[in-house]
Amino acid sequence: MRYAVLGTGSVGRTLAAKLDSLGHQVTIGTRDPGATLARTEPDSMGNEPFAKWQAEHGTVRLAAFADAAAGSETVVNTTSGMASLRALESAGAANLAGKVVIDVANPLDFSQGFPPSLAPVDTDSLGEQIQRAFPGARVVKTLNTMTAAVMVDPARVPGEHSVFVSGEDAEAKAAVTALLTSFGWPASSVIDLGGIETARGTEMLLPLWLRLMGALGHADFNFHIAGARPAV
Amino acid sequence: MRYAVLGTGSVGRTLAAKLDSLGHQVTIGTRDPGATLARTEPDSMGNEPFAKWQAEHGTVRLAAFADAAAGSETVVNTTSGMASLRALESAGAANLAGKVVIDVANPLDFSQGFPPSLAPVDTDSLGEQIQRAFPGARVVKTLNTMTAAVMVDPARVPGEHSVFVSGEDAEAKAAVTALLTSFGWPASSVIDLGGIETARGTEMLLPLWLRLMGALGHADFNFHIAGARPAV
Repeated sequence: MRYAVLGTGSVGRTLAAKLDSLGHQVTIGTRDPGATLARTEPDSMGNEPFAKWQAEHGTVRLAAFADAAAGSETVVNTTSGMASLRALESAGAANLAGKVVIDVANPLDFSQGFPPSLAPVDTDSLGEQIQRAFPGARVVKTLNTMTAAVMVDPARVPGEHSVFVSGEDAEAKAAVTALLTSFGWPASSVIDLGGIETARGTEMLLPLWLRLMGALGHADFNFHIAGARPAV
Repeated sequence: MRYAVLGTGSVGRTLAAKLDSLGHQVTIGTRDPGATLARTEPDSMGNEPFAKWQAEHGTVRLAAFADAAAGSETVVNTTSGMASLRALESAGAANLAGKVVIDVANPLDFSQGFPPSLAPVDTDSLGEQIQRAFPGARVVKTLNTMTAAVMVDPARVPGEHSVFVSGEDAEAKAAVTALLTSFGWPASSVIDLGGIETARGTEMLLPLWLRLMGALGHADFNFHIAGARPAV
């Protein structure tokens, strides 16, 4: 499968490396590939310069958002949530049409400091905004409720724990569930919440996630829904 | 211990019955006890008339908010979240001062239908509003992330699962943790998130809780934090 992973941060790098290791063809999309490659200092989150990372992942390509999306069959949005709609506009509606768009981003607003607030929140979500802005895309919200390392290696958190999927397109959710299985998620860990509106629920987990990280002192945890079982 | 449980809904009744069964002295607080006892029809949530319930729980008293709070050592707020500040005003700041106030309510706004929205949300919480309005009270937010039956009988959900506490007063949180233990919660299930500001995180679980109830078709589930362990 040909994947475009939009975003060069730790989530994008982690997912790109995993997809690459599974034999997929992966292109990371960024606003300005030249600028991304020219950086020699760690980014604001402490990630090593992208060129250094790419040297260790030689089969992962880097391209502009639109080029990455155009050549892909599936698009993964790992851009900063406040910039996601702009990034997807740059990718281009025509390059998203008909494709599964996996939205991993959270609309965290750090402009007032830490902890960030969410915008939109409660009566809307980034997942819904993306689906509305790109009605031809088959948006599936998933993996946004855990740290990047856990997304691609669920076994690093002991015991059972859950990953949620939200979206309008049953076939797209099935494809994403198969991808999650290939990442190591047991099928019983995948909880289909329903339509993309349910992304409000998972995006609103982030405030608790951030406070748990503070209270526990690490990010190697995840939410598990104890007592979940199929509806009768 | 003498408890005032404010609110006559299913959460209030469930907690009052449990506290009563543990040998505590329990008074349920309501706005107008005469009106509460005069009802002969199920309430809007389908709960049987209060008088019928009370006939089966003869040692639980019913009193006006202020009377219930005045006679208590610990106050439990189970009123509807949108009405909680008014209910606590009726209880009276003097009757809350110095006491542990366990806030179980969620500020769910059903005025626009289902699913409800949260107000306040994200940059404030009901737990914080109560603490600000009653600075003499020792507010602990807890148990608001699960259905009433699970609050007092955690074993009805299989496996490990979590209950969160948020509050400014360490002694109050320790007292609440001891109460949770008496309800059947293992000490390892209690996660102290920090100050009352962290109530934002647990109140914002409700949108996902509501959607999980819809997706699973039942309410006998709970959140578990897999990988939680004490910070080093």
